[in-house]
Amino acid sequence: MAEPAIATQAAAPAVALLKDELDIVIPTIRNLDFLEMWRPFFQPYHLIIVQDGDPSKTIKVPEGFDYELYNRNDINRILGPKASCISFKDSACRCFGYMVSKKKYIFTIDDDCFVAKDPSGKAINALEQHIKNLLSPSTPFFFNTLYDPFREGADFVRGYPFSLREGVPTAASHGLWLNIPDYDAPTQLVKPLERNTRYVDAVLTIPKGTLFPMCGMNLAFNRELIGPAMYFGLMGDGQPIGRYDDMWAGWCTKVICDHLGLGVKTGLPYIFHSKASNPFVNLRKEYKGIYWQEEIIPFFQQAVLPKDCTTVQKCYIELAKQVKEKLSKVDPYFDKLADAMVTWIEAWDELNPTGPVPNGKAA
Amino acid sequence: MAEPAIATQAAAPAVALLKDELDIVIPTIRNLDFLEMWRPFFQPYHLIIVQDGDPSKTIKVPEGFDYELYNRNDINRILGPKASCISFKDSACRCFGYMVSKKKYIFTIDDDCFVAKDPSGKAINALEQHIKNLLSPSTPFFFNTLYDPFREGADFVRGYPFSLREGVPTAASHGLWLNIPDYDAPTQLVKPLERNTRYVDAVLTIPKGTLFPMCGMNLAFNRELIGPAMYFGLMGDGQPIGRYDDMWAGWCTKVICDHLGLGVKTGLPYIFHSKASNPFVNLRKEYKGIYWQEEIIPFFQQAVLPKDCTTVQKCYIELAKQVKEKLSKVDPYFDKLADAMVTWIEAWDELNPTGPVPNGKAA
Repeated sequence: MAEPAIATQAAAPAVALLKDELDIVIPTIRNLDFLEMWRPFFQPYHLIIVQDGDPSKTIKVPEGFDYELYNRNDINRILGPKASCISFKDSACRCFGYMVSKKKYIFTIDDDCFVAKDPSGKAINALEQHIKNLLSPSTPFFFNTLYDPFREGADFVRGYPFSLREGVPTAASHGLWLNIPDYDAPTQLVKPLERNTRYVDAVLTIPKGTLFPMCGMNLAFNRELIGPAMYFGLMGDGQPIGRYDDMWAGWCTKVICDHLGLGVKTGLPYIFHSKASNPFVNLRKEYKGIYWQEEIIPFFQQAVLPKDCTTVQKCYIELAKQVKEKLSKVDPYFDKLADAMVTWIEAWDELNPTGPVPNGKAA
Repeated sequence: MAEPAIATQAAAPAVALLKDELDIVIPTIRNLDFLEMWRPFFQPYHLIIVQDGDPSKTIKVPEGFDYELYNRNDINRILGPKASCISFKDSACRCFGYMVSKKKYIFTIDDDCFVAKDPSGKAINALEQHIKNLLSPSTPFFFNTLYDPFREGADFVRGYPFSLREGVPTAASHGLWLNIPDYDAPTQLVKPLERNTRYVDAVLTIPKGTLFPMCGMNLAFNRELIGPAMYFGLMGDGQPIGRYDDMWAGWCTKVICDHLGLGVKTGLPYIFHSKASNPFVNLRKEYKGIYWQEEIIPFFQQAVLPKDCTTVQKCYIELAKQVKEKLSKVDPYFDKLADAMVTWIEAWDELNPTGPVPNGKAA
């Protein structure tokens, strides 16, 4: 597990599950050579590439991939004034890809993530595992000690209530990382040489009422069930904070999933995370988040959504209201973020109309 | 992993952690030949053997083990009328061993559990792993996606609040089973050939507010922190139910740990569970539990302990009161069980006096 799998190892033809129902969203500032390695797994799918930074730069995509690419000019053109809710010079811009997708499922991955090997040396088809996670139910109301009861060779253990064995729909699947673990800057600084070599062969549902740190590096979700909650906030250029984009999305997503009775899984699949980002740069981006989160997390732990919040959009607008009320005192940034959350939903609904539309046809 | 490790494989001298602070409690109805296999790991420790069933039968213990053995006559003699709270003809009788122990830690194991092998083929020292679990903190308030942050090679991931990184004391460590999984009778009947071969290399804290099915087959706990909650209820002879002894203890323990700010871990270590019990017999023992648990679990999920419940004993007495109030309507059995819970605490306190004692010396 010390090295990533090489492309030829992964060359066995993969079964492309949900080929026409899933988009792969990749935020990037560079040529996408990393896709070569993923070719056996990703080539059947459509890619949405969100180019961050200078829009005049050309991003090269290896031949043979089916993709659409959006740079900042595209985002501004498509969203107009609402483009203000999409971060610039930060991988948080990836959420624009979620919004323009027309598919039911999204897989998002960073361009420094390579194919990992399982303990037998076999290349891991991360996307296939995410799809399995998303297509099988979650069990947020009671803990199963043998982990995911829906995996082959596993089941619910003695004492698991039978009324809960149907499970609930799975909204998100959070994958992990071999090699460079997803540590914050202080931990990176203290443990510069730590590498994750432990392959934990498990998928589990994060219980209802429990928050978790959601990393955007290797993440899949059901866009129809939870898409509008996957807003990666205001980060990067002009903002006082970075590297909390996925955390923000994770807190909001989990609170809304708990309210709506949806599941979030974590564990398999692993990707091979190739390169540690600069801990000094990270510290500058993170330091406000590191103390803000001490107030943000209790806020989300205590957040209650009213019963009439029956859609993700309604839940999200309600959360935006509570953020404004309760977190603005932490920093004026949260006032701006709460407004951006509302703008995000408006933009989402504009690009994803539902129900009767002006000309009388259902969307 | 299809076979247990053999004794000679385990013959490397093990470091006997907490040798003078831990008792191994074994309920049994037969000769303890299974100890041969555990000799390298268990021999340095003191055993408490609780003989179930006919007290006139002699249980043979392999040479060289340091043990005390209690049969039903001993239990009746020591507890007098309070012996009524200890089950007969059911492995639930093991909790008598917790009560008479004078040690800080307990490890309890069934006599059909053998030494398992890890994926490298090495014999697993289950007791050593339990001790590591108990001696390192738990993290019940927020989920760490890389599992136990206190294991070597792991840590808290980005986004984990720093104020929660000290963790809380660990009260219990719940180990798992290779080979025969701990399934209920219906699942046994439906999947007679299913074997657990998946070695999941993880330990994790069960989040606050989440209940789990605690199995008593391979379990360790800190007796000082949580001992009085580890009552295995009224099962077996004369009772309408069996195989819910450990479940009952698990529900009570988790609710009390959550209230007192203590942690419960599950995962490693594995033991090799050698023999499936008879599913038809199990069904007879379980069937009332299978429908009762549909009401019991919501009861425990909603149970709130008042702030003045600052000791395990006070919490447990309060729970007994709530059981009587809210579960007696399910079946008169719970009325009897609630009384037995109170008797258990009285017996515990009699055998484990604390604070000033009549002659003025602290116990």
